[in-house]
Amino acid sequence: MNKKSNTKLAIRNSHTHLYAVIMAGGSGTRFWPLSRQLSPKQLLKINGDDSLIQQTVKRINSLVPLNRVHIVTNENHYLEMKMQLSSIGNGSCNFLIEPEGRNTAAAIGLAAASLYKKDPDSLMLIMPADHIIKRSERFLDIVRHAAEIAKKDYLVTFGIKPNRPETGYGYIKARSQKSEVRSQKYLKAEKFTEKPDLETAKRYLKEGDYYWNSGIFLWKSSVILNEIKSYLPDLYKNLMDVKKAVGGNGLDAAVRSAYQRIKPISIDYGILEKSKKVAVIPADIDWCDVGSWSALDEVVEKDKDGNIKMGNVIDIGSVNSILYGGKRVLATIGLKDLVVVDTDDATLVCKKTDAQKVGKIVEELKRRGSEAHLTHRTVHRPWGAYTVLEAGDRFKIKRIEVKPKAKLSLQMHHHRSEHWVVVSGTARVTNGDKVYNVHVNESTYIPPSTRHRLENPGIVPLHIIEVQSGEYLEEDDIVRIADDYERVKKLKG
Amino acid sequence: MNKKSNTKLAIRNSHTHLYAVIMAGGSGTRFWPLSRQLSPKQLLKINGDDSLIQQTVKRINSLVPLNRVHIVTNENHYLEMKMQLSSIGNGSCNFLIEPEGRNTAAAIGLAAASLYKKDPDSLMLIMPADHIIKRSERFLDIVRHAAEIAKKDYLVTFGIKPNRPETGYGYIKARSQKSEVRSQKYLKAEKFTEKPDLETAKRYLKEGDYYWNSGIFLWKSSVILNEIKSYLPDLYKNLMDVKKAVGGNGLDAAVRSAYQRIKPISIDYGILEKSKKVAVIPADIDWCDVGSWSALDEVVEKDKDGNIKMGNVIDIGSVNSILYGGKRVLATIGLKDLVVVDTDDATLVCKKTDAQKVGKIVEELKRRGSEAHLTHRTVHRPWGAYTVLEAGDRFKIKRIEVKPKAKLSLQMHHHRSEHWVVVSGTARVTNGDKVYNVHVNESTYIPPSTRHRLENPGIVPLHIIEVQSGEYLEEDDIVRIADDYERVKKLKG
Repeated sequence: MNKKSNTKLAIRNSHTHLYAVIMAGGSGTRFWPLSRQLSPKQLLKINGDDSLIQQTVKRINSLVPLNRVHIVTNENHYLEMKMQLSSIGNGSCNFLIEPEGRNTAAAIGLAAASLYKKDPDSLMLIMPADHIIKRSERFLDIVRHAAEIAKKDYLVTFGIKPNRPETGYGYIKARSQKSEVRSQKYLKAEKFTEKPDLETAKRYLKEGDYYWNSGIFLWKSSVILNEIKSYLPDLYKNLMDVKKAVGGNGLDAAVRSAYQRIKPISIDYGILEKSKKVAVIPADIDWCDVGSWSALDEVVEKDKDGNIKMGNVIDIGSVNSILYGGKRVLATIGLKDLVVVDTDDATLVCKKTDAQKVGKIVEELKRRGSEAHLTHRTVHRPWGAYTVLEAGDRFKIKRIEVKPKAKLSLQMHHHRSEHWVVVSGTARVTNGDKVYNVHVNESTYIPPSTRHRLENPGIVPLHIIEVQSGEYLEEDDIVRIADDYERVKKLKG
Repeated sequence: MNKKSNTKLAIRNSHTHLYAVIMAGGSGTRFWPLSRQLSPKQLLKINGDDSLIQQTVKRINSLVPLNRVHIVTNENHYLEMKMQLSSIGNGSCNFLIEPEGRNTAAAIGLAAASLYKKDPDSLMLIMPADHIIKRSERFLDIVRHAAEIAKKDYLVTFGIKPNRPETGYGYIKARSQKSEVRSQKYLKAEKFTEKPDLETAKRYLKEGDYYWNSGIFLWKSSVILNEIKSYLPDLYKNLMDVKKAVGGNGLDAAVRSAYQRIKPISIDYGILEKSKKVAVIPADIDWCDVGSWSALDEVVEKDKDGNIKMGNVIDIGSVNSILYGGKRVLATIGLKDLVVVDTDDATLVCKKTDAQKVGKIVEELKRRGSEAHLTHRTVHRPWGAYTVLEAGDRFKIKRIEVKPKAKLSLQMHHHRSEHWVVVSGTARVTNGDKVYNVHVNESTYIPPSTRHRLENPGIVPLHIIEVQSGEYLEEDDIVRIADDYERVKKLKG
């Protein structure tokens, strides 16, 4: 083993108490129609081959191995997230499932209670799942440095030096530096502020001791729990109830029960604005929170005309535009400063300067009862996934992928027949009292009110096309009789 | 019968030699992605509930009954056109099918030869199928007047008084008016010009004796044939060959043979620029040839923000824009002077001033071998229609409608199996040696290399979902064994 490896090992070992906590509960609408309630920003491949959460996990992987990564998320996103992260390195991440969102103090508190019980000396590096950091190596250096400061019982926040009077972020004001602090390269935090108006933001930029609050924090689990005890005693009590259950079978129930009582509040407002222990480390890491389509300009490489193009785009003479096509043809001519996003079931066209108004479109869709704010067409399930290809009068068509050795529940529908065409792989079909295999290019059908089950007995994925026909074709016409995934009493998928 | 009806009857009777010839061979790309090679502009509902060709036929219906309407078109568009026009009034139109386009002199000559043989006194009112005329009553008045002038052996052209220096139209210069002509409200044509440049167009507008060439003409079939004999003798010879076959079984073959020899030339360049018999009637009929998306501004009513909206559009604050949505959600924010057209398989976004560049997109699509310039997803066939819903790796899904009592050909595919789910109606299926019925919500499948036939034995339309699966799924993997529509030797549908 050479010297470099030795050093690396030493660094790694010195951080065995360092855990990553990734905040992945967001249900962002700001990248609609690419992001949806069921496919939020952190799961999207916005700027390359990896989704934002994959990038977040990979970024710290050399410092924090997967088994020390804890992801706080919710049931809706858990399966897809797990699938995305299964492709990274050895081992697997830990998931903390919130029954519903209660803002950041609860999410961080949940992670702190859980980590403290496992390792009372644990240090928590808290990171949002949906940010882009271009200078990864520099980021790791700062994490190492922040860990040293956090060991002195500071709540370390990562501050980004502003380069423009941004009104979309919160700011941290650093106190004038004392020499003993300066020598250790951190600042004491004096004040946290909410998103300022433009005038104020300009003043902050000029005054020079304000930093953007990146939402990246590093502290001991013991210290943050103590601060929660002081400033949010109700939350603390609930977290202690959860802590008792950590490591046992009752954790889910304990979390569910605690979350019913927890009042939502942000960690900034609830703790950081009040605590005397907050430090700021200026983090020159080329950070971007990609808050809207127009933010892509900062993080994705543009062509010589200033355009960002993805997918099946044919363009004539556009400039400074973001052109996101999918499978279908997106043809654009002579556009300037526009955002065009074309997906299977919705298209967005807006000026870059209006990109933050996308939320209003999503609200309007909700009001109209449209599903286009909710789902992309592919839905992940424990046994695989399905994509709704088309729905029409009296029929619905899905493409279904079943993982090797996986099976759907034994089920029954009252109002529809289902027709299965095997496109690749082999299906084992339970159809009433019969069980038989259906091979590639063959099909079978299940009459209404017949118990049935679809199963992949093979070692390669099974792809089928399902055509449902009947009067009523919603997901809630399902009677589950047996299920490998404990969903007999639930009504989904 | 009251006096008004008497007058109407008298007028109608006085025009029993008046025939309408509708030029419907266009394969316009200028309304892509709504128009396609297989769904040209004349078949689209651009400005209301009727397609442009439906509007064209209805407009003259009170003067020219359906059985005196002759439509010149091609095989690709014939079926859908016939279907669209079947909904109008009693009787049916006549169709003249060109094997391929040979420009307007050939199309008009074909109609003239055909009409002259049927009725040597016939007057031909020639109209493009894809124009919009807002003042329909005024148009009929001018047609009646033009018919009187045409009876004096004039080639009457309908001239539109320009209101702008348009460079997209041809112009007709009228000769200074002699009093005897003026009293009869027509002008002698002095000169035809091609599309001018902007300077020239401005001069024309200023000089005042220039008219836009609307492409609407009225003349005796005998007179135009004589002029063709003088100025285009080769075309005349070919038309005389066709004329011999009119009314017999050999017409198709005669047209096909003649068209192989006919050289393409426009009626303007070939005849009207040379003939001494051309008259112009100023036609104040609020005419528009809807040459591109931006022309919709002239013919479709706008909302208070100057927008034209169709389909599933959610807009926030756009102005002066044309927003054409389909089934999917089209969301637009803050657009200005833009055209957005969203269809099932392609989306266009361009500035209004760039709308005429759409042809370049279509060229690029052809170059890339994409089908998005060619078809909309629904294809009409003698037995009904099919729509491609989805195509993927090893599968293709179609929705198929079979008319009552209609049947597809007895056929076979080497490389795919076909799976049919009956969504409504009843299917009679020939599958190898077996013939059986498949009822609603049931399905069946046809293995590769098996003779099969799909038939609707019922009295309501049959709707099925077809899933094809296999290695090769193109339309040319078909062996026709028997067909009700004489398509055994051809390779389509």
